[in-house]
Amino acid sequence: MLSPSFEAVPEDYLSYKEKFENAVKETVEIFSRVRHLQEQGKTTINNYREVMANILRSTIIRDGSPLALHYFMFMPSIINQGNEEQQAQWLDRAWNCKIIGSYAQTELGHGTYIRALETTATYDADTKEFVLHSPTLTSYKWWPGGLGQVANYCIVVAQLYTKRKCHGVHLFIVQVRDEDTHEPLPGIKVGEIGPKFGLNSVNNGFLGFNNVRIPRNQMLMKNAQVLEDGTYVNSQNSKLNYGPMVFVRSVIFSDMVNYLSKAVTIAVRYSAVRRQCQRKTGEPECQILDYMTQQHKLFIAIATCHALRITANKLWDTFNVVNKELLDGNLRRLPELHALACCLKAVGTSDTALLVERCRLACGGHGYMMSSNLPHICQQISAACTYEGDNTVLLLQTARFLIKTWQQVDSGKLTPTVEYLSTARTKSYPGKWVNSVENIVQAFEIVSMRKISACVENMQNKVASGVTFEDAWNMSSVQLISAAEAHCRVILLSSFYEEIQTCSKTVSAELRVVLIQLLDLYIVYWALEKLSDLLQYTSITSEDVQSLQAWYEDTLTELRPNAVGLVDAFDLNDKVIGSTLGSYDGRVYERLMEDALKSPLNSETVNYTFHKYLKPFMQGKL
Amino acid sequence: MLSPSFEAVPEDYLSYKEKFENAVKETVEIFSRVRHLQEQGKTTINNYREVMANILRSTIIRDGSPLALHYFMFMPSIINQGNEEQQAQWLDRAWNCKIIGSYAQTELGHGTYIRALETTATYDADTKEFVLHSPTLTSYKWWPGGLGQVANYCIVVAQLYTKRKCHGVHLFIVQVRDEDTHEPLPGIKVGEIGPKFGLNSVNNGFLGFNNVRIPRNQMLMKNAQVLEDGTYVNSQNSKLNYGPMVFVRSVIFSDMVNYLSKAVTIAVRYSAVRRQCQRKTGEPECQILDYMTQQHKLFIAIATCHALRITANKLWDTFNVVNKELLDGNLRRLPELHALACCLKAVGTSDTALLVERCRLACGGHGYMMSSNLPHICQQISAACTYEGDNTVLLLQTARFLIKTWQQVDSGKLTPTVEYLSTARTKSYPGKWVNSVENIVQAFEIVSMRKISACVENMQNKVASGVTFEDAWNMSSVQLISAAEAHCRVILLSSFYEEIQTCSKTVSAELRVVLIQLLDLYIVYWALEKLSDLLQYTSITSEDVQSLQAWYEDTLTELRPNAVGLVDAFDLNDKVIGSTLGSYDGRVYERLMEDALKSPLNSETVNYTFHKYLKPFMQGKL
Repeated sequence: MLSPSFEAVPEDYLSYKEKFENAVKETVEIFSRVRHLQEQGKTTINNYREVMANILRSTIIRDGSPLALHYFMFMPSIINQGNEEQQAQWLDRAWNCKIIGSYAQTELGHGTYIRALETTATYDADTKEFVLHSPTLTSYKWWPGGLGQVANYCIVVAQLYTKRKCHGVHLFIVQVRDEDTHEPLPGIKVGEIGPKFGLNSVNNGFLGFNNVRIPRNQMLMKNAQVLEDGTYVNSQNSKLNYGPMVFVRSVIFSDMVNYLSKAVTIAVRYSAVRRQCQRKTGEPECQILDYMTQQHKLFIAIATCHALRITANKLWDTFNVVNKELLDGNLRRLPELHALACCLKAVGTSDTALLVERCRLACGGHGYMMSSNLPHICQQISAACTYEGDNTVLLLQTARFLIKTWQQVDSGKLTPTVEYLSTARTKSYPGKWVNSVENIVQAFEIVSMRKISACVENMQNKVASGVTFEDAWNMSSVQLISAAEAHCRVILLSSFYEEIQTCSKTVSAELRVVLIQLLDLYIVYWALEKLSDLLQYTSITSEDVQSLQAWYEDTLTELRPNAVGLVDAFDLNDKVIGSTLGSYDGRVYERLMEDALKSPLNSETVNYTFHKYLKPFMQGKL
Repeated sequence: MLSPSFEAVPEDYLSYKEKFENAVKETVEIFSRVRHLQEQGKTTINNYREVMANILRSTIIRDGSPLALHYFMFMPSIINQGNEEQQAQWLDRAWNCKIIGSYAQTELGHGTYIRALETTATYDADTKEFVLHSPTLTSYKWWPGGLGQVANYCIVVAQLYTKRKCHGVHLFIVQVRDEDTHEPLPGIKVGEIGPKFGLNSVNNGFLGFNNVRIPRNQMLMKNAQVLEDGTYVNSQNSKLNYGPMVFVRSVIFSDMVNYLSKAVTIAVRYSAVRRQCQRKTGEPECQILDYMTQQHKLFIAIATCHALRITANKLWDTFNVVNKELLDGNLRRLPELHALACCLKAVGTSDTALLVERCRLACGGHGYMMSSNLPHICQQISAACTYEGDNTVLLLQTARFLIKTWQQVDSGKLTPTVEYLSTARTKSYPGKWVNSVENIVQAFEIVSMRKISACVENMQNKVASGVTFEDAWNMSSVQLISAAEAHCRVILLSSFYEEIQTCSKTVSAELRVVLIQLLDLYIVYWALEKLSDLLQYTSITSEDVQSLQAWYEDTLTELRPNAVGLVDAFDLNDKVIGSTLGSYDGRVYERLMEDALKSPLNSETVNYTFHKYLKPFMQGKL
């Protein structure tokens, strides 16, 4: 799991099984140290999420850890969904790693549509037990991290049956392995799911049940309950189930800047070291960072790091406000927060995926070397586009909120992040277009408003012509996604714009210039990317477009002298970067060679396959 | 190298070293059979490229072969650049694999700018030898396939020095390993470069020389020569050096359809098997292929396969015409062919990379499993965006040709693929826009023409204001790339359009309907993708855009019933597809589980790391 440049034999040389074994060894080493911090009172159950997030985010666990779900899903589920008695029973043992848990929701056949999960938990009032069962192959749990060979307990999401009635999915604590021998318990079929594109240290597992019995008090009963006689007592508010999803998507969105800043640091530093092509006779070859095409690829990634970080801060502010309101029983802004986290997770991960791949390609052939660390970053971000909500599905969830919001646009009671819809509606375009950051941000608000209203009109027409609402929704879904993205662009652009407006008042004049260059770059880049929208919904002219393009190119040139400084300012140490191309000292070529020489293949001059296969083949003896 | 579903232990479980050893074993097995075909006269030196291409393209060698460069670069270099004597000396031994060669051009410090390669070959007239030397770390050869542990000979590209003068880069045959013991020869430092994002069976190597001597007749001398006394005799036409690059880029472009058809077959078949979400109460869950967002992701990939294949055929037609002219000493169309191959390689690989990743994401979590084969395809296409010419550099080469062409636009003597520039210039826009395929293709011609002329004007203005041409070029390069891409879109759209026009006359009415749907989809998709260009350079209105969008969505709906049939028609067998998700029988979930059970980790119920690390940790003993 350590970065290749810092290991004797980089992990990329190991077999899949060895990688797992290495991951257990290193995870145990790291979390033993965490336990020492606990014993010193430096980590408590109240601040552990932050401590864990820092650990998991740092280099150290580059390819994921089999203990991640224990800390991020198993314990939080007990805290959020367990009653006091259950917390007393389980939390202490989990916190001290006496037991190690995982969280099993997704099945082979179902991920997005949780309501159709097939695993059953049937209450037997005679023995006061739940019977967990996997009725089909597709009902096998699939994907839970750490479940393959590491966890001995697991939270299982299953359809609750009691008194012959199904009450939908609920959470159950199930022991899967013997605490002493670690052997799977009777009726449990558990194993790991095999190699993935990335994150191969996570030990993702599968899990099936053959009528496995657990005591009644292992259903998490903070909200809904099953009484001893099998009576089902409903939860008070099902909307509260949004909470954990919103949290985890906000974490994912906030995390993007860590990946992107790493990738762009590598690519910018390498582009300052790499020289290629002589532009003028007699001069030395150029740093490739002097090519405008390279600046075009990389500088937007620098600006995006700041836009993402600022927007993430705003998201957490909203998160905290809404959670405070929740404690007071006020649920008004929960749907808004949910819609916000959905679209930011979707757009944030897909923008980052695109930019990270762009950074990788900007490093040419060497960006294809695992030792550059860029492929690992690509593999990890790819996963983030799918896990905890597929991006397409999430954008449709935001769209659903926006459509509902539009129906209240006349009410004057819109929640803060969509308030612009009501003001944008009153703006008269085509007015005179001005090439300014402020005007572009406003134009994006108009674009979002127009796209949402067009979707509503479109669906209304379809429904009026006799199509069902569900079909009208499906037939409009390509445009709904585009509307949800447009809304998300408003959030990103306006958050960045407002924060730079505010903070540039308090910083030095020199810093202010650079902050404004970054803001300009981001806003103008997106204006050019979404030009077809601006051309359709505002009065921008072809001449305006030309001067936007010139503004964009001038900003690239202005940023060039500070580019290396800007990535240095991300302040990532070489171990976190973990790249032969991106270390602070710029020893790119030396590191590439040093790393290659660690290849086990290079430790002998002739591999045995020459004598066994190649030579007989060359001699025509095969 | 075999597909996971067909192996006892899929290769993804092996260590890096074991993967290499496996690759040698299987490569030798496969090429022994090829040799039997040779002995039966079924493969000859005249048709071998086709035979090899089929072998390398098929499943069998999924992650690349260490013999690929022997067949695709080593032998062709001798054929193209060696004189008759050299061909007699080397070809027969190479053809019979008595020797195995690689091709070493790229160095640690130079890839794109070949003129600055640092390896030197200095002629010593006293001994009639060339002395090969690597003066710096950055001059080490880096990347050649098969060079690490397999090849014993290598074509080396080095700066030729004779009589104290440098004559630029030339090709030399250098023996790197002993034919009998396979040990590296004195003065040769050879090894392999370590793990990469993909293509890890290729055995890419590095190579450095410490004053290694080779006889004079090992410089390839078909064109330029060094006489015994050290006199340098120039080659007759340096433009002929374009030839091999054009060939290999055309091969890469033609190959894209093989990757894309595989990816989209997997994704469409999986989307027909996968059911998720109940759209209407009482109905079964939908096939995810019924969601318009899924159709939007996948159907364009089906249409693109046809567009790519048709354009590739057209490229090869041009290639053959130009090569025939070359034999007659007519070089007129060589720059055009070069520019065409450059932009098609660049746009073809980047479109395919985007669509393959889209197919992968469309398969959700399961698309992240290596056993889906989608990650492998992504990794391979990623490489194609860089090798044999970085895509950005290639588009700039096409742009350079287009700018030159524009200066002759009044001459009436434009070559066929750019003739449209002259006709487009005479068309008067804004005329009335019509939403038809024909009109869209013409509109793309106008867009390309306008972008090229804008770049020329832009650069002229800059030069007039005192900027050097090189700086003006760099400052315009973002727009130059956009112009080159626009030109390439014209080639792709018009090739597809013309071919469907022609062939739809001869096919059945039923097939004709589907072919036209595919054409419509492709053309309208690109009109919507490049809407900002159409809005700027044509008279298209917002209403036209709305009906374009409706046309696009209707075409998705029309294509839905034939989607599975269309991918079945690519006629790829299960071994070539090599995917748990994409096999013909649709046993998706069964195969996923079968493949997971092959994991060496699943062959024991408890891994040793439990006893060694995990248990002591859980007991608080660490």
